[in-house]
Amino acid sequence: MNNPSAVLTKVGEIVIEDRPIPQIKDPHYVKIAIKYTGLCGSDVHYYQHGRVGSFIVEKPMVLGHESSGVIVEVGSEVKTLKVGDRVACEPGIPSRYSYEYKSGNYNLCPEMAFAATPPYDGTLCRYYLLPEDFCVKLPENVSLEEGALVEPLSVATHATRLAKLTVGDNLVVFGAGPIGLLCAAVGRAFGASKVCIVDIVSEKLDFAVAMGFATHSINSKDKSFEEILKFIQTSWDGERPTVAMDATGNQFCIANAIRLLEKKGRYVQVGMGRQTMDGFPIAEVAERELLITGVFRYTVDDYKIAVGLIGSSKVNVKPLITHRFKFEDVKKAYDFSKEGKSIKIMISGPE
Amino acid sequence: MNNPSAVLTKVGEIVIEDRPIPQIKDPHYVKIAIKYTGLCGSDVHYYQHGRVGSFIVEKPMVLGHESSGVIVEVGSEVKTLKVGDRVACEPGIPSRYSYEYKSGNYNLCPEMAFAATPPYDGTLCRYYLLPEDFCVKLPENVSLEEGALVEPLSVATHATRLAKLTVGDNLVVFGAGPIGLLCAAVGRAFGASKVCIVDIVSEKLDFAVAMGFATHSINSKDKSFEEILKFIQTSWDGERPTVAMDATGNQFCIANAIRLLEKKGRYVQVGMGRQTMDGFPIAEVAERELLITGVFRYTVDDYKIAVGLIGSSKVNVKPLITHRFKFEDVKKAYDFSKEGKSIKIMISGPE
Amino acid sequence: MNNPSAVLTKVGEIVIEDRPIPQIKDPHYVKIAIKYTGLCGSDVHYYQHGRVGSFIVEKPMVLGHESSGVIVEVGSEVKTLKVGDRVACEPGIPSRYSYEYKSGNYNLCPEMAFAATPPYDGTLCRYYLLPEDFCVKLPENVSLEEGALVEPLSVATHATRLAKLTVGDNLVVFGAGPIGLLCAAVGRAFGASKVCIVDIVSEKLDFAVAMGFATHSINSKDKSFEEILKFIQTSWDGERPTVAMDATGNQFCIANAIRLLEKKGRYVQVGMGRQTMDGFPIAEVAERELLITGVFRYTVDDYKIAVGLIGSSKVNVKPLITHRFKFEDVKKAYDFSKEGKSIKIMISGPE
Amino acid sequence: MNNPSAVLTKVGEIVIEDRPIPQIKDPHYVKIAIKYTGLCGSDVHYYQHGRVGSFIVEKPMVLGHESSGVIVEVGSEVKTLKVGDRVACEPGIPSRYSYEYKSGNYNLCPEMAFAATPPYDGTLCRYYLLPEDFCVKLPENVSLEEGALVEPLSVATHATRLAKLTVGDNLVVFGAGPIGLLCAAVGRAFGASKVCIVDIVSEKLDFAVAMGFATHSINSKDKSFEEILKFIQTSWDGERPTVAMDATGNQFCIANAIRLLEKKGRYVQVGMGRQTMDGFPIAEVAERELLITGVFRYTVDDYKIAVGLIGSSKVNVKPLITHRFKFEDVKKAYDFSKEGKSIKIMISGPE
Repeated sequence: MNNPSAVLTKVGEIVIEDRPIPQIKDPHYVKIAIKYTGLCGSDVHYYQHGRVGSFIVEKPMVLGHESSGVIVEVGSEVKTLKVGDRVACEPGIPSRYSYEYKSGNYNLCPEMAFAATPPYDGTLCRYYLLPEDFCVKLPENVSLEEGALVEPLSVATHATRLAKLTVGDNLVVFGAGPIGLLCAAVGRAFGASKVCIVDIVSEKLDFAVAMGFATHSINSKDKSFEEILKFIQTSWDGERPTVAMDATGNQFCIANAIRLLEKKGRYVQVGMGRQTMDGFPIAEVAERELLITGVFRYTVDDYKIAVGLIGSSKVNVKPLITHRFKFEDVKKAYDFSKEGKSIKIMISGPE
Repeated sequence: MNNPSAVLTKVGEIVIEDRPIPQIKDPHYVKIAIKYTGLCGSDVHYYQHGRVGSFIVEKPMVLGHESSGVIVEVGSEVKTLKVGDRVACEPGIPSRYSYEYKSGNYNLCPEMAFAATPPYDGTLCRYYLLPEDFCVKLPENVSLEEGALVEPLSVATHATRLAKLTVGDNLVVFGAGPIGLLCAAVGRAFGASKVCIVDIVSEKLDFAVAMGFATHSINSKDKSFEEILKFIQTSWDGERPTVAMDATGNQFCIANAIRLLEKKGRYVQVGMGRQTMDGFPIAEVAERELLITGVFRYTVDDYKIAVGLIGSSKVNVKPLITHRFKFEDVKKAYDFSKEGKSIKIMISGPE
Repeated sequence: MNNPSAVLTKVGEIVIEDRPIPQIKDPHYVKIAIKYTGLCGSDVHYYQHGRVGSFIVEKPMVLGHESSGVIVEVGSEVKTLKVGDRVACEPGIPSRYSYEYKSGNYNLCPEMAFAATPPYDGTLCRYYLLPEDFCVKLPENVSLEEGALVEPLSVATHATRLAKLTVGDNLVVFGAGPIGLLCAAVGRAFGASKVCIVDIVSEKLDFAVAMGFATHSINSKDKSFEEILKFIQTSWDGERPTVAMDATGNQFCIANAIRLLEKKGRYVQVGMGRQTMDGFPIAEVAERELLITGVFRYTVDDYKIAVGLIGSSKVNVKPLITHRFKFEDVKKAYDFSKEGKSIKIMISGPE
Repeated sequence: MNNPSAVLTKVGEIVIEDRPIPQIKDPHYVKIAIKYTGLCGSDVHYYQHGRVGSFIVEKPMVLGHESSGVIVEVGSEVKTLKVGDRVACEPGIPSRYSYEYKSGNYNLCPEMAFAATPPYDGTLCRYYLLPEDFCVKLPENVSLEEGALVEPLSVATHATRLAKLTVGDNLVVFGAGPIGLLCAAVGRAFGASKVCIVDIVSEKLDFAVAMGFATHSINSKDKSFEEILKFIQTSWDGERPTVAMDATGNQFCIANAIRLLEKKGRYVQVGMGRQTMDGFPIAEVAERELLITGVFRYTVDDYKIAVGLIGSSKVNVKPLITHRFKFEDVKKAYDFSKEGKSIKIMISGPE
């Protein structure tokens, strides 16, 4: 095949098709041979339901958006990359003419073309095109497999940067899935000495602490807000978190995360859930002058900083990869993912 | 009487008692002859219900906290004020040893002693003591009556400063009561050219625009979110607010105010309502990376800046005073206030 | 002539040449019929010296970069402008691919193509091309002549925004030329109640105060730093400036402006002068924790905000225009400019 | 002796006197048995010259201000400390009534009483009084000797926080004395992966890199600015520092440090030198929109964060202590210090 591609043809069906090899037209673009692609919850959601929120798969779409690869061709204007360079691939290309792009928030660009978000094809293929500046070169000590984890790591990096988390802050993270783990790890890398992760699955919490993603953990199942607060304050010499993040999208988690905050604390919504939530602690937001915000993907510098976090050993992403599949077994990988036994599944190839 | 004071003796009963004239003990304090006191919703709430949230009136308490007066005595360490100076009175005194005070957020001090918040007596009396630095001298062109409005103006000033509102921002304010009107006016003074005020009482909206507090208004009664948004965008060349404030505490207003915001917009909760709210648009907060915060009273510089806003004619607070009572008629003033026919009631004296 | 253009052919010589009418190639571009162009010091410097710093005029160059005009043609992708729209023209076009553009600082883009900065032709011509988003539509109440002043007003706007100047700040500006006057006026518009302008020409200072650009002025000729400080503190109830700007580039002015600042004060270098300066008060910067920065032109939102300042009557730019010339007399205008009798010279046309 | 104290009686003479044991009068105070005191350049300067800048020793003064100790008595209002607690001592007590204290900048308080700054006695004694909140409790894994290094570490912490240094930043520090080394180390702890230290003594540079304070070093002796820039860019994949600090006070270092910065880079003046400097690169500050500031000691949270940096092993301060003296040999310690063979001298006791 020229360009074997994992195509979602209808709900529950993934077929490997041979797509044409894409040709560089814009001189700022490079062609990448994709080497690894991580499976993300949103991909799986498209596979199972054919839609994520208002994004509906209306025609066959190549899946995948967490990828790394090797440059095989460069456009005539490309200055910083050359054939053979190993890169992490940023999967969303905004309009260069949008106000959001111009003002440093390209993640919010309304004309964003994002891989594996209808109608745009994803990265689970042999060859993929990207503009030079949406590829971040991997240092020698960062593997291509790690490179495929830069995408979710950038989400956590963006959240941490928006929270202005730094040395002196204490962090609580709700949710011990891949994004929650990465938020915890990035929080530590940015300087939080105390990081408590909260989930309802003890195995995930134990993993989080054992692998160094968090310093403390608590299983919130059947626990009241007061019990969680007491646990944290007891563990932290009476201190409360100054930064909180939610990676679950669950409204009870969100309310608890916010309520745990110290005065003037900052909260970042990372997980996606319902459009609106009940029980939002609006009076506490005012009385303690809390700051609430949320993140949408990542933007300028996040990818580069995320690669730097791996390269400088500040974040160890490898333990996240619990299962590996070959490209030809991509459907098996998606089916296995649904079972919930994995943290991050990595797909290699196609060759 | 030595120090006639308006005392809430029980729910629904206000008695003018003669309290001892307070003596300066701390050399940083001054003694103020109170000249004007504005009636605030929280005072009225204590009068009617004997409590506000968890603050319960358990013994007779002097009412009032929006006051101005004239210095009649100064402590030995006082350097910036002298007898005869006309001042606006800041009614909440934090601990000088609290972390919040030290770090620039004294409004959040847990040991705050706030006038007319149990168990602390208020300012509706002849003589009141304050530390020098919690009095702000009124310039010659600011009247004592205006000085009594500095307290609510400081709430609006604090909200506007937290929102970092400046030239280039557009503001929407929900609620056209005294605080909402002042938020709108302060927003204009800080640079917003377009300020839309939203309420369900057309008379209030007309007043807001006629008096120059806002540039636009919309009656939200029976209007959907989409209709409000359309009105604003039609009026504003397609633009949306970059800053939103709620001065109602109503959860529908809060949700609408947030949803109206432009990407990266900032929302400030000013009004007090229920402890939690339903229908909080958490997904929009994340997708548009909105910033949500709330304010609790006012802090360093707010009072001084508020006095400056009046002195420089950037905010005209006078139209807010719709009714005036003498000190001996204070109970009548509270009773009248309950009727909802006034914006701000001003009590003069006691002589 | 098709496209009469004012060409600097060599030092001291300006010739009106007929250049070809430029054709829209990029569908994001519009064609503008230039209506007014203000004369700027840098243009005059090129005229007199053939260079500004390292920028050397090596081939004939069209002059002019402070222009307004009317849209006469739009590219196929243009969405927000139509033929007949009156616009202020942003004269510098950065690369859409530069890191600086992407991160919200396009003014610092190393590939900037700036009008009348070698080798790029300027705007003193009949027809000029710009991308849609580098034109800002003028509201009905803003004249095209005012529109030509948006360029220098944007410099002042950028400086004021970098200084984070807002209500509560006091401003001192050194230099009462066009840029200094506009810095003072924009400072007032952003909320500074007290604005002192400093120069060595009393007529300029009187003009500044009479026209409302500043609230106070002092002639610094033969005055010591201490005398200037004393004047300001005496005029301002003992207060010092919290924000200072220099629009002279003179090292004595710079040092004085910085030294006048209150603790934690912010200084912005606006004027251009020598590459380095002597007598920089480094110890005071540390001891009072001052913030020093400088501005280079303007960037995202500055033009739009500047147009808004005129449209909302917050800044009255009209008094700056002291002399008017027709396009055919452009050389006379440059010669007159050298005499230093004007504040801002406006050139109309070409027809 | 009751309270043996190291008194500077005149230039070059230090005598151990028995001073009265200080008594707690303010109930917020604690009494500390001083255990370790580090020698600081300013102490030595008083010893040699009898003055530092405008501060002149006019009567005998106890030396020392970098101390740790053990609580031996607590005032009646003290809540967070108890007898036996090991603490780092913050040596400067501001006025609780100053504007600077109230607004979060107590380091700039004009009424600061700072240990061993005339006319205030220092900490080289057996018993010393401090307010509770100017003592930071040491965690179990932090020794009292390390506790005495919290003072200089707080200077570096304050500088790093003012610079808003975080992950993604690259740092250059001029000066490899104790403060420069700590700035480098704190920069790494806050997230800078690349930290280059610059000095003219190769041994110091080698020490800095060997001990992990910096990742790169360059001896600037006889090197041009261009050579230093080239070295850094070659070492850093073409990148320039985004943050620069000077811990020398030397004007050539300052100018070079600033000129090395990337666009929008931030510079912090940490070292003290001449009142003014020549050769300040004002044009580059404007053209690259650099941010220049300076630090004066430390303020809210710095001490606590500095203790946390040691406790969490993010900064290893121990290697700084190159020499130790007993209290009775304090004069020998000062004399040895003058020889310049030590990095940090630690004095233990008095018993």
